Amino acid sequence: MKKDADTFGRVLVAQLEGRDSGYLVERSDGYMDWDSGAHYFGPDRDRGMRRALKMARGKVLDIGCGAGRHSLALQRRGLRVTGIDRSPLAVRVCRRRGVKDARVLGIEQIGRLPAGSFDTVVMFGNNFGLFGSPARARGLLREMRRITPPGARILAQSLDVHRTTNPEHLSYQRRNRARGRLSGQLRLRIRFGLRAGPWFDYLMVSPAEMRGVLRGTGWRLDRVLPSGGPLYVGVISRRG
Amino acid sequence: MKKDADTFGRVLVAQLEGRDSGYLVERSDGYMDWDSGAHYFGPDRDRGMRRALKMARGKVLDIGCGAGRHSLALQRRGLRVTGIDRSPLAVRVCRRRGVKDARVLGIEQIGRLPAGSFDTVVMFGNNFGLFGSPARARGLLREMRRITPPGARILAQSLDVHRTTNPEHLSYQRRNRARGRLSGQLRLRIRFGLRAGPWFDYLMVSPAEMRGVLRGTGWRLDRVLPSGGPLYVGVISRRG
Repeated sequence: MKKDADTFGRVLVAQLEGRDSGYLVERSDGYMDWDSGAHYFGPDRDRGMRRALKMARGKVLDIGCGAGRHSLALQRRGLRVTGIDRSPLAVRVCRRRGVKDARVLGIEQIGRLPAGSFDTVVMFGNNFGLFGSPARARGLLREMRRITPPGARILAQSLDVHRTTNPEHLSYQRRNRARGRLSGQLRLRIRFGLRAGPWFDYLMVSPAEMRGVLRGTGWRLDRVLPSGGPLYVGVISRRG
Repeated sequence: MKKDADTFGRVLVAQLEGRDSGYLVERSDGYMDWDSGAHYFGPDRDRGMRRALKMARGKVLDIGCGAGRHSLALQRRGLRVTGIDRSPLAVRVCRRRGVKDARVLGIEQIGRLPAGSFDTVVMFGNNFGLFGSPARARGLLREMRRITPPGARILAQSLDVHRTTNPEHLSYQRRNRARGRLSGQLRLRIRFGLRAGPWFDYLMVSPAEMRGVLRGTGWRLDRVLPSGGPLYVGVISRRG
């Protein structure tokens, strides 16, 4: 990713350096959501997320590690963690904050990681979304079987998009379904100051939809941990 | 103003009804600023603004009355207040909140008000900005002489745009000056959810620039009350 396109990384650097890190998530229909950027640094206070963090074991792959808050929490518990993020600036922030093994790597590049090398894959911070679409998720879940041993787990946070009354969200979801897409298949980009990053796909699913995405991939949704409002963590086990 | 274009009024209605009222102010260069919409309802806690409110006397015209927080504060002090706003929804919010005389009227329409009818004109909430440009300000200041008696006052809040280190603001200001405009002549629009309102001009000035705008209009900047960060209230007196 070129430095100019790395708007998300710029948000994290601004927050780390005490500058204004407020940014916008723009959806393809023009809807914009503002965020302060601060929560990428704080610990997860939510009970579901705290329980989910405790379920990680062995060697951990943190996909979309951002500013490293989950990698750091897991390191503090004595686990070996590899954090990956497509954003070079995010990885730089992780290193500055003490993440021992942070690498510039997008989720689509996990095939480069050694076979059988991770006991737990975490996708916190709503990062089930990084799968982008059900089809892309299925391909990546096959890769995840290759890089994990039998008995491995994925801990993935998502957001049940059906739990909203906002008419603008509901109409975006309706248009998605009319085009044969899942309700929560979003096309987004990050705007920070005058810069707009590249558009990317982001997938938000209900637990039932998560089950559907996992079907036939060799992974199974075992438990759902509510983690604040419409958010939840799916505890996903490798079959066989 | 058509209901569809009244994005600002929609923000106020959403806040009044307890719905999400977060909105964006988009500048012509694409810079966006987020605001919760809440401060339109709260009282001014700032010392300069509290002093300024006490300086109002007689019959008061509140230009750009928004959700009515200043009109209501002045009414509580026993003053007769006419609040005007170009936004029909804002005026509806003012009435629901108890402003006795709120009217749908833009600043460019103050010529319709009776001659000599207001002892104080207030332009709080950064509403010196409603003048839009120095040229437009001079025309409107002449109108304000007509609707006020000798001894009248304008209390106008502005923001000294030079007090920033944000490179994106500074470069917008440089482009303005290169085109012969004041640094703080902004072109803005309000975005709320999927709606974007019409573009409008908004003028932010330092005290020295305010003096310059007033020159030759029959109004004079007497005092400057700091009102939080780069904000201040200009106390402006009618000459003769």
